[in-house]
Amino acid sequence: MTDRTIEILDTTLRDGAQSEQLSFSVKDKINIIHALDRAGIAVIEAGNPGASPKDMELFAAMRDETLKHAQLAAFTPTRRKTNDAEEDPMLAAVVACGAPIACVFGKSSRDHTEKVLAVSESENLAMIDDSIRYLRAKGLRVYFDAEHYFDGYRADPAFALTTVRTAFAAGAEQIVLCDTNGGTLPAEVARIVGETIAATGAPIGIHCHNDAGLAVACSMSAVEAGANHVQGTFLGFGERCGNTCLSTLIPNLQLKMGCRVVSDEALRRFAREANLIADAADRRLDRELPYVGRSAFAHKAGMHVDAHLKFRGAYEHVDPAAVGNTRRLPVSEFSGHQTLVAKYAHLFPEVSRNAPILARVRETLKQKEAEGYQYESAEGSLELLIRREVGSTRDFFELIDCKLIDQLPVRIGASASAVVKIRVGDAVELAVAEGEGPVHAIDTALRTALGRVYPTLANVHLTAYKVRVLTPRNATAAKVLVLIHSTDGDREWSTVGVSADIIKASYYALRDSIELKLINDCERGAL
Amino acid sequence: MTDRTIEILDTTLRDGAQSEQLSFSVKDKINIIHALDRAGIAVIEAGNPGASPKDMELFAAMRDETLKHAQLAAFTPTRRKTNDAEEDPMLAAVVACGAPIACVFGKSSRDHTEKVLAVSESENLAMIDDSIRYLRAKGLRVYFDAEHYFDGYRADPAFALTTVRTAFAAGAEQIVLCDTNGGTLPAEVARIVGETIAATGAPIGIHCHNDAGLAVACSMSAVEAGANHVQGTFLGFGERCGNTCLSTLIPNLQLKMGCRVVSDEALRRFAREANLIADAADRRLDRELPYVGRSAFAHKAGMHVDAHLKFRGAYEHVDPAAVGNTRRLPVSEFSGHQTLVAKYAHLFPEVSRNAPILARVRETLKQKEAEGYQYESAEGSLELLIRREVGSTRDFFELIDCKLIDQLPVRIGASASAVVKIRVGDAVELAVAEGEGPVHAIDTALRTALGRVYPTLANVHLTAYKVRVLTPRNATAAKVLVLIHSTDGDREWSTVGVSADIIKASYYALRDSIELKLINDCERGAL
Repeated sequence: MTDRTIEILDTTLRDGAQSEQLSFSVKDKINIIHALDRAGIAVIEAGNPGASPKDMELFAAMRDETLKHAQLAAFTPTRRKTNDAEEDPMLAAVVACGAPIACVFGKSSRDHTEKVLAVSESENLAMIDDSIRYLRAKGLRVYFDAEHYFDGYRADPAFALTTVRTAFAAGAEQIVLCDTNGGTLPAEVARIVGETIAATGAPIGIHCHNDAGLAVACSMSAVEAGANHVQGTFLGFGERCGNTCLSTLIPNLQLKMGCRVVSDEALRRFAREANLIADAADRRLDRELPYVGRSAFAHKAGMHVDAHLKFRGAYEHVDPAAVGNTRRLPVSEFSGHQTLVAKYAHLFPEVSRNAPILARVRETLKQKEAEGYQYESAEGSLELLIRREVGSTRDFFELIDCKLIDQLPVRIGASASAVVKIRVGDAVELAVAEGEGPVHAIDTALRTALGRVYPTLANVHLTAYKVRVLTPRNATAAKVLVLIHSTDGDREWSTVGVSADIIKASYYALRDSIELKLINDCERGAL
Repeated sequence: MTDRTIEILDTTLRDGAQSEQLSFSVKDKINIIHALDRAGIAVIEAGNPGASPKDMELFAAMRDETLKHAQLAAFTPTRRKTNDAEEDPMLAAVVACGAPIACVFGKSSRDHTEKVLAVSESENLAMIDDSIRYLRAKGLRVYFDAEHYFDGYRADPAFALTTVRTAFAAGAEQIVLCDTNGGTLPAEVARIVGETIAATGAPIGIHCHNDAGLAVACSMSAVEAGANHVQGTFLGFGERCGNTCLSTLIPNLQLKMGCRVVSDEALRRFAREANLIADAADRRLDRELPYVGRSAFAHKAGMHVDAHLKFRGAYEHVDPAAVGNTRRLPVSEFSGHQTLVAKYAHLFPEVSRNAPILARVRETLKQKEAEGYQYESAEGSLELLIRREVGSTRDFFELIDCKLIDQLPVRIGASASAVVKIRVGDAVELAVAEGEGPVHAIDTALRTALGRVYPTLANVHLTAYKVRVLTPRNATAAKVLVLIHSTDGDREWSTVGVSADIIKASYYALRDSIELKLINDCERGAL
């Protein structure tokens, strides 16, 4: 396999957008295209301009954007059975959109041709042939997506092969076999890809769906059988169970199968770009996603943590740095003493690993975890917990009182308002604020009051606010966990709060965020 | 392959619990054991009684529970290098816990033996041999988990094979080869499993991790190469990227490879048990999980929906009923007219599919989706949206005013309180309530006021309350989506609200929930 080059097409913005609960703005899509470009993706299928005005708008907007090396592709069905290619509005839209590559999809299954499309075999072939020749004549490069290829081939290999030969003869430079229903097993994919290459001599690509949890494995099988092109979506987004996850597939091909897919530098951006794409999709990145997830190289079991200290890579299949990820030793009830000491050594300057103070930290941690606190994504609050136990923080302020008033129904001039009273040393500060909602009102009032005493707080911005309902079955009395990410431009930190009252949970996370900023300023001498 | 029987061991409660952010109460664990038993799992590895008092407590509690056919297994390392087997506290705990099967894990890699365990090859073999013989003498059935087998075999096949032979000779009835770091490719798994069976004659099982997104594929490769036993976790929970997902693997083995794994009846319970296990783990079930996820058989693309009407199974690799799941045609901006009309025909009694009223419904839907509303999981609110457009609901009540007051810091006697004033016909009702938090207070006050007029509301219970932050980067001013599941004992329904103010978003979802109950009561003549 070594040194074979495999071309990747990402269809996050087209097939990926078929995922339930996903919808992208044009701005989100542009951000995703740049992230994919930085990750070294060769072809980006950006939409179906004939079916969606929003997609056409995106192609127009992309004319002002510069990509490092990715090429854009536009997706389209073949001409309709009732149209000539010259008159077909979908094909015209592909030409008008300005993308250099057209991905034309057509039927390779007799059942789908006859029952869904309701045309004869010869008309189906004419639709494929006409559409590709038309687009080639307009100067486009053409890829042909053979829909339902594997089901079609199993039922009638000659029918399926003829569609491939027709598309190749018409000028398609890449034929992509699609396992549209996602049910084919890897060995069958390898067999059919191999037989198709042998029978047609065409350059063959693969497009899998994950309905049997095998999209990555099937794509690898296809490459082993000779495919030179793979389609998927960077985070596996797609209809039903998703498409081939490229952030898993590409490292497998490159690090384990010796293929050349993206540059090593692009590969080292994978974890970062994965997070950017998830953000643009307004989804949280699956923690457990291979290679790029936050947990992918996290070692929770005390025993595994211990082994790491003895033998680097003891529980790792690849070096996390190769994909831009990092080893994490998250703290939890499973962790041994070593984890805490190894991570927070700077907070225990004179404390040996067996000191009673460490036992007290672990006791408090256990108690907080029993209340529902989770520190894996809120290491700022964990640091504070330790600092409070070892005495390396101080009381920067005291909340004397906070009153929150909200109202319904929505009326002009009426919104959530908060009154906050704090004490700093001998001074008492009172502030009031309105907000988009109760948490925003408290946040604003608290910063107003504290900002008079601690002006550096003006540099702190919250970059994310997340809510997780810990006990959804307790309905409106459920416990919630609030997670806040903060930055002051130099550093980033994350904090957590838990309560059955979302306002209190949010306050706890805000309070920790502010305290961490003040500690840091203190230690840098800026306070 | 046909008619080969494959034994499954589920380790959700042991290896699965190593997943970040998971921790189970004893009650949760008992619920999971029963769910796995109903799903036909043969062996359930319930914990490590020597390492965790909570696990020992679970084994004690299980003595009062009756399982249909699953057997419990207890996990343990081999004896420590410094102990005789008779004196080893971990082995003693396994004997004491009362499980009929012990899963003993030991080292099969020279590196791990010498660098992590720091013992000689002969001492490692003695630890395996002693531990298994000891447990066999105490009447237990023993499985041997060969840790790091694949990495160990690649580095030194003779070393790895000797550990298998030793365990088998000592009385282990099942040897399980573990790809502990999760990095081995399917073809390599098949080769090593095949060679190990040929060299040792032992019954071989497989235990994979998903670090390369291939755990299911590798487990299938092992079965093809002759393995008779597979370990995994029902929903794929596990350290780093998780373990082999059994709710994907089992249908693949049974429906696609012709193996006999669980009864057809048990298989038809899969979707239901998957949801129960996710609930017990307080995680939402991954919508896109093959076979059992909510999106696994959902068809969003208008074209796919259309094909379904022409050709059953046009976009399905198996019948969803075989795994207890259902086909869904969720409504979204992608859907054609057909979806709305097909699903809500009963709400459009005299309306043809082209009527202006349908265009109006689609316009409102689009507008709501632009505001952030998502109806895929809130079909109750979608039904109401349509009813409001077509006029098939009425004004059951009007919210005149709602005031919410909350306070910090926490003080005895002070909690969130809400005052609600509503009008029903000519009557005005005023009610006040306290709650665990602001949403609970409003919920309680609203039900108190409405309950005086509509006594059937007393039967409505909320079964889940979920919050999703739609725009986390807007920090505390972020838009949130609130999702509520309700039941009156007969029916279940789900509703949604969106606002930058979590209290308002919650109110909108609550209001929809109540209105749906009242409409239903009206239509049944119960109001």
